Amino acid sequence: MNEVIKLINNHRSLRKFSEEKLSQEEIENLVGAAQSASTSSYVQAYSIIGVTDEEKKKQLREISTQSYVEHNGHLFVFVVDFYRNNELAKKFDQSISYDKTENLIVGVVDASLAAQNMAIAAESMGLGMCYIGSLRNDVNKVKEILDLPEATFPLFGMVVGHPTTKGSQKERLPFKEIYHENTYQRMEQVESIIEEYDQSVSEYYKERTNGQRDDKWSEQVVKTLMKKQRLDVDSFLKSQGFLGQ
Amino acid sequence: MNEVIKLINNHRSLRKFSEEKLSQEEIENLVGAAQSASTSSYVQAYSIIGVTDEEKKKQLREISTQSYVEHNGHLFVFVVDFYRNNELAKKFDQSISYDKTENLIVGVVDASLAAQNMAIAAESMGLGMCYIGSLRNDVNKVKEILDLPEATFPLFGMVVGHPTTKGSQKERLPFKEIYHENTYQRMEQVESIIEEYDQSVSEYYKERTNGQRDDKWSEQVVKTLMKKQRLDVDSFLKSQGFLGQ
Repeated sequence: MNEVIKLINNHRSLRKFSEEKLSQEEIENLVGAAQSASTSSYVQAYSIIGVTDEEKKKQLREISTQSYVEHNGHLFVFVVDFYRNNELAKKFDQSISYDKTENLIVGVVDASLAAQNMAIAAESMGLGMCYIGSLRNDVNKVKEILDLPEATFPLFGMVVGHPTTKGSQKERLPFKEIYHENTYQRMEQVESIIEEYDQSVSEYYKERTNGQRDDKWSEQVVKTLMKKQRLDVDSFLKSQGFLGQ
Repeated sequence: MNEVIKLINNHRSLRKFSEEKLSQEEIENLVGAAQSASTSSYVQAYSIIGVTDEEKKKQLREISTQSYVEHNGHLFVFVVDFYRNNELAKKFDQSISYDKTENLIVGVVDASLAAQNMAIAAESMGLGMCYIGSLRNDVNKVKEILDLPEATFPLFGMVVGHPTTKGSQKERLPFKEIYHENTYQRMEQVESIIEEYDQSVSEYYKERTNGQRDDKWSEQVVKTLMKKQRLDVDSFLKSQGFLGQ
């Protein structure tokens, strides 16, 4: 296993950083790495907004409810972006389609590939990072704070900074569960693998909390996914010109 | 700039590979790297299907229209996957929600972050890779070929193999165009940057084709996005239980 794969496998989400800011060179290196990712048909359907304004960071923290969003680290917001392409089309007296779920998916994939490149670049520089999906708790407000135009969608944030903690890793599903060969394997084929995994995750929590917590992965994700949340994302997307009929 | 960032920045999509197959160890390293990416609330809402069956590869090539999908490289298909979580919920006599665009986005982001980790891992091993978004040309057929259950969506493929060509890179949008500070910058603020970029892309094509081709980035993406394509993705997603009302 080479050094790059070791770095990738050593990923952990960090939420505490020192006060030391990123330099302009670091920011440009991170954004450059993000941009080097593949992009569907060269459309580059995303933008990255760096938020340094203290008042804006405070407002975004209130949306995400995560205090570290406000207090330290450089905050990048990844935005699905068809506004740029749409404005260019107007110059040619044309109009483009971005109103199908297919188009939205192209933008979400483009932005995500770019973000993951940035995540690895950050960790390779000795920096720590964490995704902030919880910016989607109030996408209308994020639009207002960042003055986003139509045909854009704030997908997630990422904080990047100089770490002050080591963080920990959560074990992933076993290879045999995530990787299928030629045909999708149904639940009855993998049930025992998930049971073993549940045991292993449960032991991790017990150890980390001195026996206070021992929930299994299955229980935890079912609880998470039972919650109906961010129900305004659909109507927001429609108001931005996505998901038309 | 460190070695990892140089590797990331040196990315190029490769479509020709030797006949040499990936070893089981290589496949496990690639999937392990993919799984190390962040996952929204630990849900791990994706699966990866490795396609080695020649008949299935042929059928998938017919969908994507890209001959290299059939002929060489290891073909991974990244699938947005709430089936696993949904089956687990049934065991607890519960049901989960995955019928909002928000849920679909969680799965698309999870799968994309994992895939980009795999892409970098592959390149770090001296392998080449290329995304295959064109599997979405016929998602119903992909479902049939891979026997996908409800609550899943085939997002894209990725071929990985031993390269026989060097490939080339397409210049990305300038830093000042993709990166905004605190507030989204409208078209009138960046028009001249895009014009310069268009010139630069145009020169690249001229050089590569001995003057035969000189189209600008703007024209190219507008043409791409004017096409209405993959119009059945919406109805497929609905039939799989996504995008409910």
